Amino acid sequence: MLSIYLDNGKVEVRDAPVPARPAGFALIRVELAGICNTDLELQRGYYGFSGTPGHEFVGIVEAADSQQLVGKRVVGEINLACGHCSWCHRGLGRHCPTRTVLGIVRQPGAFQQLFVLPESNLHVVPDHLPPEIAAFTEPVAAACEILDQVSIPPGSEVAVLGDGKLGLLVAQVLQANGLKVHQFGRHPEKLRIAARAGVVTEMVGANLPEAAYEWVVDATGSPDGLSAAARMTQPGGTVILKSTVHGLVPVDTAPLIVNELTLVGSRCGRFEPALDLLSRGAIDVRSMISEVLPLADASLAFDRAASPGILKVLLSGESYQ
Amino acid sequence: MLSIYLDNGKVEVRDAPVPARPAGFALIRVELAGICNTDLELQRGYYGFSGTPGHEFVGIVEAADSQQLVGKRVVGEINLACGHCSWCHRGLGRHCPTRTVLGIVRQPGAFQQLFVLPESNLHVVPDHLPPEIAAFTEPVAAACEILDQVSIPPGSEVAVLGDGKLGLLVAQVLQANGLKVHQFGRHPEKLRIAARAGVVTEMVGANLPEAAYEWVVDATGSPDGLSAAARMTQPGGTVILKSTVHGLVPVDTAPLIVNELTLVGSRCGRFEPALDLLSRGAIDVRSMISEVLPLADASLAFDRAASPGILKVLLSGESYQ
Repeated sequence: MLSIYLDNGKVEVRDAPVPARPAGFALIRVELAGICNTDLELQRGYYGFSGTPGHEFVGIVEAADSQQLVGKRVVGEINLACGHCSWCHRGLGRHCPTRTVLGIVRQPGAFQQLFVLPESNLHVVPDHLPPEIAAFTEPVAAACEILDQVSIPPGSEVAVLGDGKLGLLVAQVLQANGLKVHQFGRHPEKLRIAARAGVVTEMVGANLPEAAYEWVVDATGSPDGLSAAARMTQPGGTVILKSTVHGLVPVDTAPLIVNELTLVGSRCGRFEPALDLLSRGAIDVRSMISEVLPLADASLAFDRAASPGILKVLLSGESYQ
Repeated sequence: MLSIYLDNGKVEVRDAPVPARPAGFALIRVELAGICNTDLELQRGYYGFSGTPGHEFVGIVEAADSQQLVGKRVVGEINLACGHCSWCHRGLGRHCPTRTVLGIVRQPGAFQQLFVLPESNLHVVPDHLPPEIAAFTEPVAAACEILDQVSIPPGSEVAVLGDGKLGLLVAQVLQANGLKVHQFGRHPEKLRIAARAGVVTEMVGANLPEAAYEWVVDATGSPDGLSAAARMTQPGGTVILKSTVHGLVPVDTAPLIVNELTLVGSRCGRFEPALDLLSRGAIDVRSMISEVLPLADASLAFDRAASPGILKVLLSGESYQ
């Protein structure tokens, strides 16, 4: 079967054996898998990664211990927790210290025709939800995580800094949850997607508003994002850190303390609210699909995903029509 | 009258006129005033400060609009808010954007025989509380601020990193409020003060415990403190930033996001809980007094306050016996 392999920055298409299915795991045939900024970072060598990436997927269960799963369309949570530690017992397997992470940490990912994932990680996709929409479940869940972490009063104004893939999802998810989102970005055509969802959008000029919002989400993916977001936040307000930046970021911590800001790191989220939003058509992800390319063209797909102006690039398996 | 003046790092003792008392202000005769690390930073040129520092004080009201204040021993909150803006209307004058700050921002401080402060900033000191204890009200209030910002369940283990003046107050305040404090420091003689209050103390060795506490307070005053505190914090846990560091601090934000940590900047606090703790003798501040020197010896006092192993240095006015 086709399997994508990242090695020293090269995207290789290999012929690999179908993976063995351990007890409790499902074997999944990939329909679509999304290329995320994290995949581009893996390609650039972060985390010392070599192997098969891919953690955003939708596919059909080919084999499983639970017969009722076989043939079902599924999406899946990406953290493989031990199930036995104190974190797992508290339902916080996403923070299990010995976890592996699909396509990121010691667990071959979804950029191949077939891969395995624990059945307990899977969520069956509602029948009416097409695969190209369901493929967004993982990043939408990451956007939803904000609402599990901080309690923002309904109707509050929230600023979202950045108009990349995650920024657009965060803006739409918060807007769909009754908040008044102001999104600041650099790409009119990307901001238009959020604007159609009712988000107030603004091109980033020389000066961002200062101390203007009680809630600010940094989704810039830039080392300057944290400081810019902090400057936009009112004293006593909260900055949600949604964009991973690698390496050391120079931060002036004095204003965080003088203005008594709260910073909240935010990563993966639960799939239930994401599937609910997507099922209800409450957010527009279709407009965010820039291209769909077959797995065999993964190298081109990675190049495209890293190109300016491009939003989501999806890789398709042979079962996707 | 004697007035201390900081100019380009020099601590000068000057003869100055008694300050005029604006309407609504009290004229206060200083009994004792504490030298804080912020004063040492002002001396080093942070904030471009030149003028009379001093924001920790206890004194006797010499003149005031409110006759019942005259002759009373008082301590005072340091932020002079405008009283009219939306922050002030919400009771958040400490964040008033046009505030001045006693001895720090555009308001001559308490390192002089007499100075003025709005009557609304003053708290009358209970009769039984000696001035050398009341002089700690401001920094104890800053320690108490943590409990106004985050809700820590009673009996929780909390780590405090750093055993300087603020670290010792934070450790004692949290311990006195029913938390189980573990304090990490480098000075056995300082840690002993916290240990006598029931705090579990530990000398900082090569390795601090990792991902061990849900709540960690950085009171190191060091640029490395934030990262060290973040490493000690469990996934989903909270780091309270209690130490101001000037300039840009290199921070690896990735673990903040991956471990979904919350960072809370923390500055000044309300005086009421501080006066309550001091009145009940619930924390030991007397052991933290390293020296008491007269205002005329301010230059020596600043040198002493900056010396290794020294805790609080108090400046005394002529009315302090």
